[in-house]
Parts: sequence; structure tokens; C-alpha cells
Amino acid sequence: MRRTAIRHPPRALLRSFPTGQTPPMPVSLSTIAIDDPSDPRVEPFRNVRDRDLVGREGFIAEGTVVLDQLLVSRRFRPTSLLILRNRLAGLAERLARFPGDAPIHVADQAVFDGIAGFAVHRGVLAHGAERGARPSAADTIAAAGGRPIIIAVGLSNHDNLGAIFRNAAAFGAGAVLCDTTSCHPLYRKALRVSVGTALTVPWCREGTGESLVAACRAAGYRVLALSPAGETPLAGLVTAGRTALCLGAEGQGLSPDLMRAVETVRIEMAPGLDSLNVATSAAIVLHRLFAGEGTAA
Amino acid sequence: MRRTAIRHPPRALLRSFPTGQTPPMPVSLSTIAIDDPSDPRVEPFRNVRDRDLVGREGFIAEGTVVLDQLLVSRRFRPTSLLILRNRLAGLAERLARFPGDAPIHVADQAVFDGIAGFAVHRGVLAHGAERGARPSAADTIAAAGGRPIIIAVGLSNHDNLGAIFRNAAAFGAGAVLCDTTSCHPLYRKALRVSVGTALTVPWCREGTGESLVAACRAAGYRVLALSPAGETPLAGLVTAGRTALCLGAEGQGLSPDLMRAVETVRIEMAPGLDSLNVATSAAIVLHRLFAGEGTAA
Repeated sequence: MRRTAIRHPPRALLRSFPTGQTPPMPVSLSTIAIDDPSDPRVEPFRNVRDRDLVGREGFIAEGTVVLDQLLVSRRFRPTSLLILRNRLAGLAERLARFPGDAPIHVADQAVFDGIAGFAVHRGVLAHGAERGARPSAADTIAAAGGRPIIIAVGLSNHDNLGAIFRNAAAFGAGAVLCDTTSCHPLYRKALRVSVGTALTVPWCREGTGESLVAACRAAGYRVLALSPAGETPLAGLVTAGRTALCLGAEGQGLSPDLMRAVETVRIEMAPGLDSLNVATSAAIVLHRLFAGEGTAA
Repeated sequence: MRRTAIRHPPRALLRSFPTGQTPPMPVSLSTIAIDDPSDPRVEPFRNVRDRDLVGREGFIAEGTVVLDQLLVSRRFRPTSLLILRNRLAGLAERLARFPGDAPIHVADQAVFDGIAGFAVHRGVLAHGAERGARPSAADTIAAAGGRPIIIAVGLSNHDNLGAIFRNAAAFGAGAVLCDTTSCHPLYRKALRVSVGTALTVPWCREGTGESLVAACRAAGYRVLALSPAGETPLAGLVTAGRTALCLGAEGQGLSPDLMRAVETVRIEMAPGLDSLNVATSAAIVLHRLFAGEGTAA
């Protein structure tokens, strides 16, 4: 049950309880009751709806699915938690794995909503931060260890970037490289849609599509660009070795310069229709690489 | 430019204008100015945010992408339109294709938002209705003409069902059969996410997963069920002839009874991760069928 990536001493040790029984709160679990929405100790959680990362330290993780990824992330760590009082008992096991130096704030629904600025249904908000220095593109490519890499160019839609991380994780991709015109992977909604995988799949956000393509090539990657106007139909694509896949925003797509600089691939599709969602397109190609279809002997 | 499925005389004939120029409004285009949000003539558009189809006739199509599908749909027709005054000129060509018996209501932003009940950014709402009788499952399967069929079981998430329609259309699927525990394909958000394809891909909503499987088999379809616990890995699947694909809700999945009654397929995936989005999973299988990979000679 216990994961290995926790760097801080766990807050409490819990024995296992039979399914269906609520474990009692461990006596050593220390929480901070918040009764006033303006309490400065919950500043990291204030008005999370209206803001995102810009001008703030760290990020907000919503819900237990994302929290679980934060608890096993090697790159990021939880710094503070805010939870609904009535969820305390059900979350006891997770809270026991929460690092001892991160405060756990507990509030009733009205106070909780007053802090967050909207009605929070999930009842769990964690604030997180990077453990060390932000990795460069070269660091991130090295972390991929030869596995497939996604290069996201101009992907400003939070849902799409989040879904790309989810699909990258599902098919064992090694990294996601975002150019600076793509949105930040830790924006609240992108992180939620990624089901927390933006905390575990290596990524960076720097440079341009061109500079990220060059960095991948320098590491021995063959770079493909996915586009409805791509030259090679996917079913005819033969892959071998390190493969990176460039994705552009729906509608706008990749720049003509970038398209000329790399091999281009298209997903076969019924004529006359709106193109596929970009994250769905990525999933189709990543599955093919993962399942080893079209792989050269 | 002009599509063939329009059954009503077009409202006005417009010559083409060079790109970038705004065409003048055709003199014959008749519109109804709405100055009071409580005007009974815009009843179909009242508080669209808070309601959906339940207990109402017809459905609401938002935005020009969905409107375009409504204008070419053989099953559905537009009955009334509400648009922002400042969008009139830009929409002239579409409005010219609007049937003559459907009124075009025009309002300023404040009145428009007062009718709809929220700030409408797209500025175009169409009300639509079914032209004739609702097709049965047997009608819908016949309309598929042997092309792949999706069977949606318990798909209550509007985004997911909408995305399934979009993917079905992209890969030339012939029909989507929804059981009665799935959400309605014309719910506002499902329709928007489908990019309007729920108006053009044949579908029905009736019965159970079991009854829909039986109906497909009666029409000579081989029925597969997609599940993380499926027996055959997708890369090992050989298909030939008519293929139907059962999808269950994320998390809950398909019932053990249904899983035992059909062949089950799984998409290969990295271990230990949350399963793929259901619409993304469907896209991966539909692309394979569309591209003819794994097809028996």
C-alpha cells in the first residue's frame, strides 16, 4: 500500500481496516481548524476559481485522484492541505502519508466555500510546490529514457493539454515538452483533467516548437508531426527507436515552417469532417507505438 | 457551398463575396427584433443553462459549428433561431440557408443574455426538432448500412457521449445505439462536444445493453466489448465484416453479465494507471477498423 517516493516522515502509521469500516482518526494526526474564511493560514487556497498559477508560488491539486499522484510525485510535494471536516475520516489513510511539515486545515462547507470562492464538491484541495530546480528540456528528454516524447506547440486549451498528459501516461510516454505558447500543465483544470499525471510524467515548458524539435533530434529522436495535412497515413507508418510526436492546437495546427522541417503523419479519417480532438489523435498514435504495431523488425 | 439536404426553400439567395469582405445583408432576409427578454416568442431559448431536454420539445444547438450540422441534418430541422445583432452580417450566408418557416430572432447582448440566463459568448442559439418519427434500434442499425456501430451502455457523462459521436463521425461509424441509462445525445453539452455530429450520425436511445447487443447480432454484427479487463489485446484483434463495439461508463464499466455474453477486448496500457477516457478508447478501436488494420483477408 505504502508508496516509496515519500521523502518526509509519514504523519501517522495506520493499521488496515476491513473494507466498509471507517477507520478511527489516528490520535497523532494534527489538524488546524479554520473557522474564518479570511484566516491568513489558508491564503494558498483563496479564490482558487478566479486565479491560476500566474504570479503565485506553486499550484492547486483538487480531489483525491490528483492528491494521490502528488503524494507519489518525485518532482513535486504537497505543502498545505484544506479539507472538508466531513471528509476527514474517509481520508485518514491518505492523510497519514501526508508529510509532517505540511499543515492540514479543516473547515466546514460554508467556510471552505468562502475560502475557495465557489462551491467545492470534491472537498479536498492541496497546495503543492516543486521540490527542486525546474528541469530544462534537455533534463526532461534525458528523463524520458528513450521512451516516446510528446512536443506540444501552442496547446493553450487546458482540457486538451491535461488529456494529453493522461494519454501519455496511459501509453508509457517518457515526457511532454511544452513550448511557451502552450498553457502551463499545472493550471488547475489541466492538472485535474490529467488525473494528476502532470505531477508524475516528466515535462518542461520552454522555448519554441523548433527548439524542442532540435533538442529531441540532438538526443537521437526521430520527430514526427501529426496533422490532418500530414504526408504519411498512420497505418503506413513504420517506426523504430526513439520517436517524438509534435502536436499543434486544433484549428490553428502547426506552422508551415515546422511542418516542412519534420516528417508529417496524418490519421486516416472520413472525408469532410472536423478533425479529431488533438489529445485523441495523440492517443491513437501513442497506442500504436506502445502496442508495437508498425514497428520495424 | 450549398448542401443538398435542405428541405425548405432557402430564405434568400446570396452571391459569393471575396474572403475578408462582409457581405451586405440580403434585402429579403426577414428577422424579428426582440427588445424584451420576457417576449414569449423566444420561449424556446429561455434559461437554456438551467434546463436541458427534459419535459421540452426539441433541443438547443449552440454556435455555428453545430448549426451547420443542423442545416444538413436529414433527421432534424431548425425551428427557430436567436442571434446577437452584431453577428447578423457575419452569419448572412448561413441564415440564407435557414428554412423560410423558422423565425430568426435578433437581440442585443443584454437582452440575449437575459433570455438565455447566462452570458452567451457564441451569440447563436438554434432550436431544433425531429422531422419525423423517432427511429427504433432496428431502423438505426439498418441506417448504419453495415458500417461499425457503437453501443453505449450507461454513458451518463455528457462530454463523453458527445466525444463518442465526434469520434464515430471521424471514423465513418454507421450508428450509435444508446441504452436508456445513457444520457440523451441532444443534451446541450453533449451536442456541443459532438461538434454537431449527433445531428448527422444515426442514433437511437432505447432498451438495455443486452437488447441492443441482440439487435446488432440479429443484423449480422459481431459484438465486441471494450474493457480494461478484456480478454483479447487490441493489437491481436482480427476483424472482418460487421463489427459493433460496446462501451460502458468509466469506473463502473460494463456489467459482468454483458461481459460474459460477448467477446471482450482491451487496449494495451502502461500498468498501474487510471484507464483511458472512454471516448478516447473508442477512437483507438474505430481508427483501427477505419484504417483496415487487423482486418482478415
